[in-house]
Amino acid sequence: MKAVVLLSGGLDSATTLAIARKEGFACHALTFRYGQRHGREIEAARRVARSLGAVEHRVIDVDLRALGGSALTDARIEVPKDRPDLGDSGEIPPTYVPARNTIFLSYALAWAEVMDAWDIFIGVNSTDYSGYPDCRPEYINAFETMANLATKRAISGCRLSIHAPLIHWTKAQIIRRGLDLGVDYSQTLSCYDPGAEGKPCERCDSCLLRMRGFAENGLTDPAVQS
Amino acid sequence: MKAVVLLSGGLDSATTLAIARKEGFACHALTFRYGQRHGREIEAARRVARSLGAVEHRVIDVDLRALGGSALTDARIEVPKDRPDLGDSGEIPPTYVPARNTIFLSYALAWAEVMDAWDIFIGVNSTDYSGYPDCRPEYINAFETMANLATKRAISGCRLSIHAPLIHWTKAQIIRRGLDLGVDYSQTLSCYDPGAEGKPCERCDSCLLRMRGFAENGLTDPAVQS
Repeated sequence: MKAVVLLSGGLDSATTLAIARKEGFACHALTFRYGQRHGREIEAARRVARSLGAVEHRVIDVDLRALGGSALTDARIEVPKDRPDLGDSGEIPPTYVPARNTIFLSYALAWAEVMDAWDIFIGVNSTDYSGYPDCRPEYINAFETMANLATKRAISGCRLSIHAPLIHWTKAQIIRRGLDLGVDYSQTLSCYDPGAEGKPCERCDSCLLRMRGFAENGLTDPAVQS
Repeated sequence: MKAVVLLSGGLDSATTLAIARKEGFACHALTFRYGQRHGREIEAARRVARSLGAVEHRVIDVDLRALGGSALTDARIEVPKDRPDLGDSGEIPPTYVPARNTIFLSYALAWAEVMDAWDIFIGVNSTDYSGYPDCRPEYINAFETMANLATKRAISGCRLSIHAPLIHWTKAQIIRRGLDLGVDYSQTLSCYDPGAEGKPCERCDSCLLRMRGFAENGLTDPAVQS
């Protein structure tokens, strides 16, 4: 059984790939080059796809810089650092990229249709990022409903599924599951603003959430150690 | 009031732009360079955006060739010619591009969110193309529902609308409305397989549907004449 797995190279998507493999899917990993401040995420995605046994890995250029509107796609907007509440305030941080998950899932849908795959995996998580509207279960369900009307298979009556296995987990739970499945988190990169050497900044929301998740498991983040 | 208008440079999207302008929207036109066999569609879109008074026109590169699966994105798949039934058989032709409208609407959604626009126009039409799943009203409605859960405004309680004004019209009705609104159809290009000079082939489904629509209005297609 084939599945398309969205793979950013970060902790969540690496764990999602490991889960999809564990469930027996032949995983076709899909990564987007979308104007991140650094291309280090792409390198991390390549390492992760290889080590977690993806059967194929494609990288697609997506021009989100043409639209801007986020600290991750517009160099003039700063990535927030050292935020004590880590998104718990309910306010959406400037690292939110407008409609990003919708664009990514749309490409995944296209590839799934071309390959005749019926399953798409995405590592969204609503617990740690309640501020991102496109990480919520109701959004994922609405995308799945739309996807089942959008493609040729809509006419055949078969169903495409969007799997978001991490959606209700805490970062600590995600890490525990990933470690059980043998994910090497030293290969992943979650930082919103890594240094020139691909070193995590240890101060953005993404770094802080990760480090807290490892700490709750009595561990140190191996990406920070290495 | 701002609106994002998807503009391919063809007859339907030109008419849609004219309708959006007539309804009083400041139109931000969005065109995709996606691996068509020719870039003539882009030139047509530029002409149409200018002559129909779009306040802005952006062209975004979208790498659909990386996924293939259609006669419009894979040169090895032929564009069908001289088909007598013009899609009335219910069979989906090889010019269908997997998830294309979903990808295009996702970018429109991103741009709408960045600009704080609440309206997106798309020139899909279910009457002439019953074979394309992503041209049907139930698909457009499902996309709108998903879009209203996908973005920041989902949290604010405001509503984004996807307008598909042509969805129930025949090609002849679309042309009649466009002529009333002053659309110059000689500027548009709908052909799936235009010649090197940007001349329509007059044999693909898209050319045949257009020519029939003009004939039903007692006219000759000006793109064919010119």
